[in-house]
Amino acid sequence: MSKPLILVTNDDGVVAPGIRALVEVASQFGEVVVVAPDAPQSGKGHAITIHDPLRLRPVKIFSDIEAWESSGTPVDCVKLAKHVILKNRKIDLCVSGINHGSNSSINILYSGTMSAAMEASVEGINSIGFSLLDFSFEADFSAAKVWAGKIIEYTLKHPFPKGDLLNVNIPKLPLDQIKGLKVCRQSNGRWIEEFIEGRDPGGQPYYWLSGKFVNDDQNDDTDDWALQHGYISVVPSMHDLTHYAAIPGIKPMESMC
Amino acid sequence: MSKPLILVTNDDGVVAPGIRALVEVASQFGEVVVVAPDAPQSGKGHAITIHDPLRLRPVKIFSDIEAWESSGTPVDCVKLAKHVILKNRKIDLCVSGINHGSNSSINILYSGTMSAAMEASVEGINSIGFSLLDFSFEADFSAAKVWAGKIIEYTLKHPFPKGDLLNVNIPKLPLDQIKGLKVCRQSNGRWIEEFIEGRDPGGQPYYWLSGKFVNDDQNDDTDDWALQHGYISVVPSMHDLTHYAAIPGIKPMESMC
Repeated sequence: MSKPLILVTNDDGVVAPGIRALVEVASQFGEVVVVAPDAPQSGKGHAITIHDPLRLRPVKIFSDIEAWESSGTPVDCVKLAKHVILKNRKIDLCVSGINHGSNSSINILYSGTMSAAMEASVEGINSIGFSLLDFSFEADFSAAKVWAGKIIEYTLKHPFPKGDLLNVNIPKLPLDQIKGLKVCRQSNGRWIEEFIEGRDPGGQPYYWLSGKFVNDDQNDDTDDWALQHGYISVVPSMHDLTHYAAIPGIKPMESMC
Repeated sequence: MSKPLILVTNDDGVVAPGIRALVEVASQFGEVVVVAPDAPQSGKGHAITIHDPLRLRPVKIFSDIEAWESSGTPVDCVKLAKHVILKNRKIDLCVSGINHGSNSSINILYSGTMSAAMEASVEGINSIGFSLLDFSFEADFSAAKVWAGKIIEYTLKHPFPKGDLLNVNIPKLPLDQIKGLKVCRQSNGRWIEEFIEGRDPGGQPYYWLSGKFVNDDQNDDTDDWALQHGYISVVPSMHDLTHYAAIPGIKPMESMC
């Protein structure tokens, strides 16, 4: 039997330590092809590049593993992987990350890491985004690697329905302090923004996005609860954004507009 | 009673005809403040600008209506509107668009128009994204304006739950051929990509995203069905991406990893 084909991508760029960690893990379980941005692309969400051409260059940074860098967004990278690089080959799994920083709760919306994984899921590819709760370039990925390996192995042995997507966040803890894994829902948190206002060298005003994450959703079935209590959070996620429960309340609009 | 405060934004840029149409409609129902990108930002999804400062400039292009243009993404514009421009004022409604082109089905993921509206909904603001199924700069917004007016009036009179979000798409038809409005779900369509490959003037290869939208989800409860049959589609949408139905199937991972 041939080895599974695993696409690895991220949003921190092809030279980030987090993707190197993920490549090392994924290559234990299948044939790995890497397609990732040539520069950091954090916060790019589900952006795609429509009005500009994209570049795509082979890179030799993961010893004998096929790897490419692109000028595009994380979602562009998945599209290029599927339609230019791997064309007619079946991708068995897409893994994205390991992101430097959390993608729990509402952060899934802004995250290039998770949007890349979601794009693969739109293509019908099982997909997992991994994030470590440590923004640092020098983050310690050793525990994250162990758990990413367990989760990749599990999903290859017990494939979930076609195109399903997992948002996996890993607490910043040594391996022996991680209590296990919780399958949970996205918490209802949000960012309170605070723009840092300043003047550029020419005297013109600028605004620089800053803020802090707040979460009043303290139920024990959420990703943030799991992470705060020493667990890895796994949130099955989807790209059908229909708010089904709201349909009956909006329905009268049909006759009243 | 004071007039409702309506934030207007888009992704085609502050000078696009579509936002002018929406400003004209919205100003019939409340006090309008416009904050929109200073250049086209189609396909930017939920991107935010983290690593660069943003510019924000007042513009005088809608007679006596307060308007600002920003160098940021559509989502950045909503954040700037809420936290820099309108600060402590309560925004009663955010309307985004009218987009030049469809945002039905999976296009909600890539759409700056819908992501801006979603960002407002994350902030607890009722929000509506409007899109006309005509990409042209010269698109005829006359029928879209009539229906956007009906929908804005309805939502101000019958406010839906705090932070709810509507994805409204309008077929490219004269007013008398629009049959009405359908509240529906997001269809399960997707794009089949085809990258146009070429060489730049320096001889280097490039890849330019292209493709066609396909939809095998032909049920009569979808947005695409409504649009194909002469109706305006209204999809209540949400930013909780948890795939609740998938949780039981993934749950065994807790004990088996």
